[in-house]
Amino acid sequence: MQVAVIMGSDSDMPVMRKALETLEDFGVDFEVQILSAHRCPDELKAYVSSLKDKGCQVIIAGAGMSAALPGACASHTHLPIVGVPLLGQALGGQDSLYTEVQMPPGMPVATMAINGAVNAALFAVQILALSNANKAKAYADYRTNQTNKCLNKNATLQEVGWKDFAK
Amino acid sequence: MQVAVIMGSDSDMPVMRKALETLEDFGVDFEVQILSAHRCPDELKAYVSSLKDKGCQVIIAGAGMSAALPGACASHTHLPIVGVPLLGQALGGQDSLYTEVQMPPGMPVATMAINGAVNAALFAVQILALSNANKAKAYADYRTNQTNKCLNKNATLQEVGWKDFAK
Amino acid sequence: MQVAVIMGSDSDMPVMRKALETLEDFGVDFEVQILSAHRCPDELKAYVSSLKDKGCQVIIAGAGMSAALPGACASHTHLPIVGVPLLGQALGGQDSLYTEVQMPPGMPVATMAINGAVNAALFAVQILALSNANKAKAYADYRTNQTNKCLNKNATLQEVGWKDFAK
Amino acid sequence: MQVAVIMGSDSDMPVMRKALETLEDFGVDFEVQILSAHRCPDELKAYVSSLKDKGCQVIIAGAGMSAALPGACASHTHLPIVGVPLLGQALGGQDSLYTEVQMPPGMPVATMAINGAVNAALFAVQILALSNANKAKAYADYRTNQTNKCLNKNATLQEVGWKDFAK
Amino acid sequence: MQVAVIMGSDSDMPVMRKALETLEDFGVDFEVQILSAHRCPDELKAYVSSLKDKGCQVIIAGAGMSAALPGACASHTHLPIVGVPLLGQALGGQDSLYTEVQMPPGMPVATMAINGAVNAALFAVQILALSNANKAKAYADYRTNQTNKCLNKNATLQEVGWKDFAK
Amino acid sequence: MQVAVIMGSDSDMPVMRKALETLEDFGVDFEVQILSAHRCPDELKAYVSSLKDKGCQVIIAGAGMSAALPGACASHTHLPIVGVPLLGQALGGQDSLYTEVQMPPGMPVATMAINGAVNAALFAVQILALSNANKAKAYADYRTNQTNKCLNKNATLQEVGWKDFAK
Amino acid sequence: MQVAVIMGSDSDMPVMRKALETLEDFGVDFEVQILSAHRCPDELKAYVSSLKDKGCQVIIAGAGMSAALPGACASHTHLPIVGVPLLGQALGGQDSLYTEVQMPPGMPVATMAINGAVNAALFAVQILALSNANKAKAYADYRTNQTNKCLNKNATLQEVGWKDFAK
Amino acid sequence: MQVAVIMGSDSDMPVMRKALETLEDFGVDFEVQILSAHRCPDELKAYVSSLKDKGCQVIIAGAGMSAALPGACASHTHLPIVGVPLLGQALGGQDSLYTEVQMPPGMPVATMAINGAVNAALFAVQILALSNANKAKAYADYRTNQTNKCLNKNATLQEVGWKDFAK
Repeated sequence: MQVAVIMGSDSDMPVMRKALETLEDFGVDFEVQILSAHRCPDELKAYVSSLKDKGCQVIIAGAGMSAALPGACASHTHLPIVGVPLLGQALGGQDSLYTEVQMPPGMPVATMAINGAVNAALFAVQILALSNANKAKAYADYRTNQTNKCLNKNATLQEVGWKDFAK
Repeated sequence: MQVAVIMGSDSDMPVMRKALETLEDFGVDFEVQILSAHRCPDELKAYVSSLKDKGCQVIIAGAGMSAALPGACASHTHLPIVGVPLLGQALGGQDSLYTEVQMPPGMPVATMAINGAVNAALFAVQILALSNANKAKAYADYRTNQTNKCLNKNATLQEVGWKDFAK
Repeated sequence: MQVAVIMGSDSDMPVMRKALETLEDFGVDFEVQILSAHRCPDELKAYVSSLKDKGCQVIIAGAGMSAALPGACASHTHLPIVGVPLLGQALGGQDSLYTEVQMPPGMPVATMAINGAVNAALFAVQILALSNANKAKAYADYRTNQTNKCLNKNATLQEVGWKDFAK
Repeated sequence: MQVAVIMGSDSDMPVMRKALETLEDFGVDFEVQILSAHRCPDELKAYVSSLKDKGCQVIIAGAGMSAALPGACASHTHLPIVGVPLLGQALGGQDSLYTEVQMPPGMPVATMAINGAVNAALFAVQILALSNANKAKAYADYRTNQTNKCLNKNATLQEVGWKDFAK
Repeated sequence: MQVAVIMGSDSDMPVMRKALETLEDFGVDFEVQILSAHRCPDELKAYVSSLKDKGCQVIIAGAGMSAALPGACASHTHLPIVGVPLLGQALGGQDSLYTEVQMPPGMPVATMAINGAVNAALFAVQILALSNANKAKAYADYRTNQTNKCLNKNATLQEVGWKDFAK
Repeated sequence: MQVAVIMGSDSDMPVMRKALETLEDFGVDFEVQILSAHRCPDELKAYVSSLKDKGCQVIIAGAGMSAALPGACASHTHLPIVGVPLLGQALGGQDSLYTEVQMPPGMPVATMAINGAVNAALFAVQILALSNANKAKAYADYRTNQTNKCLNKNATLQEVGWKDFAK
Repeated sequence: MQVAVIMGSDSDMPVMRKALETLEDFGVDFEVQILSAHRCPDELKAYVSSLKDKGCQVIIAGAGMSAALPGACASHTHLPIVGVPLLGQALGGQDSLYTEVQMPPGMPVATMAINGAVNAALFAVQILALSNANKAKAYADYRTNQTNKCLNKNATLQEVGWKDFAK
Repeated sequence: MQVAVIMGSDSDMPVMRKALETLEDFGVDFEVQILSAHRCPDELKAYVSSLKDKGCQVIIAGAGMSAALPGACASHTHLPIVGVPLLGQALGGQDSLYTEVQMPPGMPVATMAINGAVNAALFAVQILALSNANKAKAYADYRTNQTNKCLNKNATLQEVGWKDFAK
């Protein structure tokens, strides 16, 4: 297993599934868990502590509001943690963003954009790619594809003109 | 022991000591610990889990930045948790405030003002006072005293006039 | 009577009723009042001042915008006050949150998350549980239940796989 | 007496004294009180309720953090209330500003800039000037003077050049 | 004419009409104008400058985004200005609020809550009431009515119970 | 070619097309490109670097979230850059606004309001008008038209009364 | 005269002088005025309206708090306006930034960073450079110089090593 | 070479040197560069593009204000990028934080706390540790040391009492 994805609640799935789909697209061997930092701290500790021995290389943790999950993961492992702050009803996402990113010296959480589940998966792939030529190739292809999509859209825009494009 | 005060770092002491001084003023039987939610999660759990059996009734937790400490305490006990968000270098205190106050449904943290260590101690006294007539008397005296201080200052102001008062 | 719930306007009921439902679930003996700090200050004072003698142990106050209600309650009683900042049309809830949480030294309000009515009720239950074994048992059961719900959802996720789970 | 100035704490005097000095400059008959909305609610009510009969026409209220004072004044009188939010240690003044300005429909507080004590006094003068030709004249002179000061500085700037001016 | 209401755009009418309705309820003699500070500065100046001689006592100005209108009015008259910041698409209303409230020393704008058009009208009435017994009576009645509405709702709540009330 | 409009993604078109329509209304000779600063940095550089020689005088760049596009354009040309921050799902537009406006000394981006695409086009026209009498005339007409529209709406308001106007 | 620099108060000079020094470095023919939008609206209008006929091509306006100055300039001229929001005592500069940048459709202000006076001057130079080969050459040299300074610092860093460099 | 540290200006060194010291403590083979995304885009591209072939595994990029550097690095390489937002004079660090963290889907930047240079280095070490047993051992020792430091401080606190400790 290469990547573990943990979310604090099943209500986080609609955003976090984009990370799962992205990991799947890259052929990453991953696990998914719903484990709240506050409701299941012991199960979270047990799970996170076990990940290194299973070969896991990156943990992706997504949570909203007082998003303690990524930091709690960090406290139980030496593996790199990628945090996804989730947009809630109030404060425009500042609550989960500040909770995840403002980690004290000594305990980093690599924080992505608010609701940035796709980027969390891509960042995990970038780490895996450091020691896996297939993943490096897949990520390079993804990036080329991204560039091409943008250039193709631009080509279409030039071809049809902005009025038709904007319809 | 009635109240446990936990802070995440010894650098929190200059603010948190005001809670300690207030608890002492009220004759509260309290303990103080420096236990980081991220650096010492196991010791924190062990300590927090032990508090109910020692007779502790309130836990005060102060932390800055991604202030996970109060929520981590909440996850390991059923005792009421009072959180003190501490002002840091950036974001005007919004980081610790949002982390402490935006707890998800099911896991409350009673959040005080940014750097509100005195109020955390007072709130603990208010809880103790529910079942302790001495504490209730002491808190009533404190409130009367507060009122009198304000009224005395106002009396002085009326007496000396605002120009002398403002000097 | 153990808990008083006060809201500033009947328009706060859709959020605050979650506190009432939670209190009822725990068999708490509670009262509910609509008393605006600004429109009915005398009635509010009369009501809040009377609560201690009725045996009330916690006051929950919910209000939006310039949410003066919890602080106004605090000024008229020595009982612990739990504040629920309510989300309004502008400012993402910062207005009611800052008003409730930034209480000056000497007059604490235990502030919950924006729209955190459930947690206000749970926090009241935690206080009641300090001197009431039944409430302590009920809260312990609630917490176990919370943990189990999360673990059960996780078990289902493992069983059906994330694709079916996320449908 | 024409204007009452109330502040929540003697620590507010260094900012609020600018309102007093301004009122004095305009020959306004004013009173100053230190009356906390939270610590002395009864004395505040008594004082504020008495103001109309004394001929008071405007109340200026300055407070910091959860600045309940102006709204509390509003709840006890029909006189116009002018609020001065005071800058505190955290949140850049957003706490007192939002508390004072976000009053619910039915209970206005005329909010000035953060630490805007001078403008509070000037606004009171503008109200007095509606029914007092001397005050109207004095305010007109003040405004002319303001304009002239700006124009004189500009004249000096043109004369000496920006390099000397900026020294 | 007692009160002038100015808005920066016809798109502000849905919020500002609440001020008009309130003024009408109080029998205030008022005018309404759509005059943008930026698009019609000369017409705005002409209109605002003419108001004192027409007997106008208060100007209510509502605007959104970079809400220069209230300050522009202030620069052209000595009459009291009441500002209504209007909620826009971005920034949760902080843009118009900060623009209106953060006036520099010497040029006050009495700022109401975001979208606080009703309060702007009420504040104007409070000013008119200083020299008009009928308006004072009407405002007192309004306040009594407000209190009664709240108390009546509370009475209904007590009668029917919160479950029926919350339906 | 006088103006180049660049957006970071085709999803920016619904807002940015307002800039295109405005440029067209003024008869500006413009080009439109979809070129992401992050996905197509080389193509962006090539395009932006080529613009001066094509006679382009202003570049309008619109982007959301971490809106690097305007600054990236600035780094590849000496032409004036006009930035349009686009409103996203979180943070109320603060992310793109701060990214675009907080350019370090030495590398200006002329930032417009959040979603301010129309103003970006108008500002480009103002620059073109400095050396083009037709554009100066067209812009003067536009401004007169703006003023007239506002005055006409006001005239209608006066004619029909606010009740009919507000319907 | 090519550029007019206007500030709202002489207290803005310490920041705005950096714009003046930059303009002087580029040999721009400029004027400086202290003209408050609120205190001297007529003189501001007279001055701003006169600028086009004097050959002025860009107006730089710097102001703090409710920074109406750039927008007021815009309302009196068709020339491009560059706004410099100035950092004040409260709100971290958000007040002047939002006031300047959130201009309504039809009336653009090209907003620079908070205290971004140097960039305002550079942006003016970029506009002048469109029709002035000397200014274009000077700006190109400035940019080359900027790049070289950065590269030279980097070369020094490589040479002496980071420990000596950081001393 | 394992890690490249890039900063946008030599003024960033006082914060970024903490990353360098931390990397050195861990025996990481690293390079440091001062390369502005805006002033030296070509040199930045050349440098960043060359890093993979030199064996570099992680890029740490620190920048303030409109902190485009980490994103610009991301656009020129497939290596993982760690961003350090730097605290500036205005906005409390929100500007650089939002610029770095709010990267669009497809182009992740692993963002650390404001001024979080130490954590950036530690996160890089965590990545290196995935394929380097020495680094894994060193990081484990660091974490044990962190825990012990906290526990030792707590032991001292228990020994000397809070009053002596807080002196």
